Amino acid sequence: MSQINPVQTAEILLMGPGPSNSMPGVLQAMSEPVLSHLDPDFLKIMDEIKEHLQYLFVTQSPHTYVVSGPGSLGMETCFVNLVESGDKIICCHNGYFGDRMHENAKRYGAEIISVTAEWGKPISLDDVENAFNTNINVKLISVVHAETSTGVKNDVEAIAKLAKKHGALIIVDAVTALGAIPLKVDEWGLDAVYSCSQKGIGSVPGMSPVTFSQAAFDKVLNRKNPVPSWFQDITVYEKYWATQTARPYHHTAPSQQYYAILAALRHIKSIGLEKIWNQHIEISAYFFQEMTSRGWKFFVEGDAKLPQLNTVLLPEGFDDASNRTKMRNEFKVEVGAGLGSMFGKLWRIGIMGGNVNKEAVDQLLKAIDNL
Amino acid sequence: MSQINPVQTAEILLMGPGPSNSMPGVLQAMSEPVLSHLDPDFLKIMDEIKEHLQYLFVTQSPHTYVVSGPGSLGMETCFVNLVESGDKIICCHNGYFGDRMHENAKRYGAEIISVTAEWGKPISLDDVENAFNTNINVKLISVVHAETSTGVKNDVEAIAKLAKKHGALIIVDAVTALGAIPLKVDEWGLDAVYSCSQKGIGSVPGMSPVTFSQAAFDKVLNRKNPVPSWFQDITVYEKYWATQTARPYHHTAPSQQYYAILAALRHIKSIGLEKIWNQHIEISAYFFQEMTSRGWKFFVEGDAKLPQLNTVLLPEGFDDASNRTKMRNEFKVEVGAGLGSMFGKLWRIGIMGGNVNKEAVDQLLKAIDNL
Repeated sequence: MSQINPVQTAEILLMGPGPSNSMPGVLQAMSEPVLSHLDPDFLKIMDEIKEHLQYLFVTQSPHTYVVSGPGSLGMETCFVNLVESGDKIICCHNGYFGDRMHENAKRYGAEIISVTAEWGKPISLDDVENAFNTNINVKLISVVHAETSTGVKNDVEAIAKLAKKHGALIIVDAVTALGAIPLKVDEWGLDAVYSCSQKGIGSVPGMSPVTFSQAAFDKVLNRKNPVPSWFQDITVYEKYWATQTARPYHHTAPSQQYYAILAALRHIKSIGLEKIWNQHIEISAYFFQEMTSRGWKFFVEGDAKLPQLNTVLLPEGFDDASNRTKMRNEFKVEVGAGLGSMFGKLWRIGIMGGNVNKEAVDQLLKAIDNL
Repeated sequence: MSQINPVQTAEILLMGPGPSNSMPGVLQAMSEPVLSHLDPDFLKIMDEIKEHLQYLFVTQSPHTYVVSGPGSLGMETCFVNLVESGDKIICCHNGYFGDRMHENAKRYGAEIISVTAEWGKPISLDDVENAFNTNINVKLISVVHAETSTGVKNDVEAIAKLAKKHGALIIVDAVTALGAIPLKVDEWGLDAVYSCSQKGIGSVPGMSPVTFSQAAFDKVLNRKNPVPSWFQDITVYEKYWATQTARPYHHTAPSQQYYAILAALRHIKSIGLEKIWNQHIEISAYFFQEMTSRGWKFFVEGDAKLPQLNTVLLPEGFDDASNRTKMRNEFKVEVGAGLGSMFGKLWRIGIMGGNVNKEAVDQLLKAIDNL
């Protein structure tokens, strides 16, 4: 047999909007042998993942598990299950990912009421209240918790209260929020929340943790028409994640991805969720102080500024593309470009996953200092 | 920080219907560092994957890439793009996975003409011809190439000829076929084919290679309504896999999964596709001879018998469940139970991926001999 060229990749410090470098133990877990999707040891791994996810989402909901696809598929799982053609939905969008939620709702035939805010600003609670007051029979509202395109935090807790007051369910994008900033699914009354396996969780990219309230699950059970997607139909999907009964075959689970997310979740559990949230605040404050002392300005300030996703405005005359290339090729540090209208105007700097520490920030600062 | 329990799993010889053990180099590739989805090195990895997949599918189609989810999602990607509500479709189903294709078509609103065959028998070409002759304006036909539930091969080449004759497109499930038995996408005129990353390809489970003909792609471009799924809309998705133009962000690619599939594809390329097909025939013939010499009978015989997926009938008085448990726990060998109506009547024995060799079969036989 001819000699095979092994797949090897460079070690890059990933300080962009994601993926971030993974938590300790994650990459090692990925090279463990494949187990089949119904192997008794594998089912135990799934049970442990579920338990850790309930801890992370701060929920008791049994409708909590991993969708075997990236966060974008988790988003779709929420919309394809909860939206029926003609349903009236308030879509909050103040960035790229809010726009994508809007696109999902539109494709599934929702009648959409848009609540927008300028990029860099959070959704106004008055605007949400007003949207509910001027539209009857709103079934759902959707909002991004941590908008990855702008670095803005939306006040999900308050928006969920308005949803409850007006009898609507709420879908929350927690892709950049989960494991990084406080998010309390049961206490806040969230109905459908999706995230990703990388970023705050610190596994590798590719999986999407989700959780649904009983009210959301009941809405799916009572649909007029079946969920168009067989693969994503949560009433079918979650039987494979049941911990009490026999587990029917659904799909061949990506075993290595499940090992990896379990390794990351064990790591988070060993530190403790409150402490993890505080570490994000602390390290981000250090980064903010160091950058402002160098004269950099931030796109978002005040309460709406996310600690884990920093949008720094590029100084006048600073060349975006060539400096990002230099960061990547010369210093082995990745930072993220601006998305959409912010391209060329800012960098997105993520402090997440395995990089929530002074060492990672110092390596990033050293690279910036040497541009 | 408290000590973290590393994720470790047992080494099981996976001789069931999949997953199979992976090809050399795959598990090592998974522990390479994460690269971001737009990193220049990562885009080169994607280009190489695409090139190898074209080799494996025996196609020149540029609409060839990996869907970031398991084979079940690849199936759905074909149906959600190619089926519009009211489209007339012939669904061939003679096993569990044919039934699932039927379920997909139904959920997307197709008007379905079923062509069935008894489990264990291939789809009759006369029945297909008859279905075309008695129904006008059939847009699509769907069929499983290697039916994992029964061990039957359907004559996809001949069915594709009938489709062409009657002006219909053809969707083919190649989950258990690709990399194991001859499948020639361009020569046979297949329009939408999906597979998985494990089994014949020999990577770990979780990804779905797909390929579309220009005719299929044009049908999607000319839909009356947008594809309901944003994530799976191939006209959006494939821009990220374009090799000539700038690559827009679509989703955060599961980097480790892409490394793993690349390692497996390099391995296949180094051996050569024809030789790989022959190895499957040779090792399966050895297994057949050894089992029949022990008095076992096979559910499928003749031309329709798949080499890579063997359905062996359980001898009278042979206890299915306790013997499978003994195989797994005592001898560390997994075999698959029968699905649906064949549960308790047969075992499904896969000889795929990293296990297409005499050593793996001998280890399996030794375990069976010691039951």
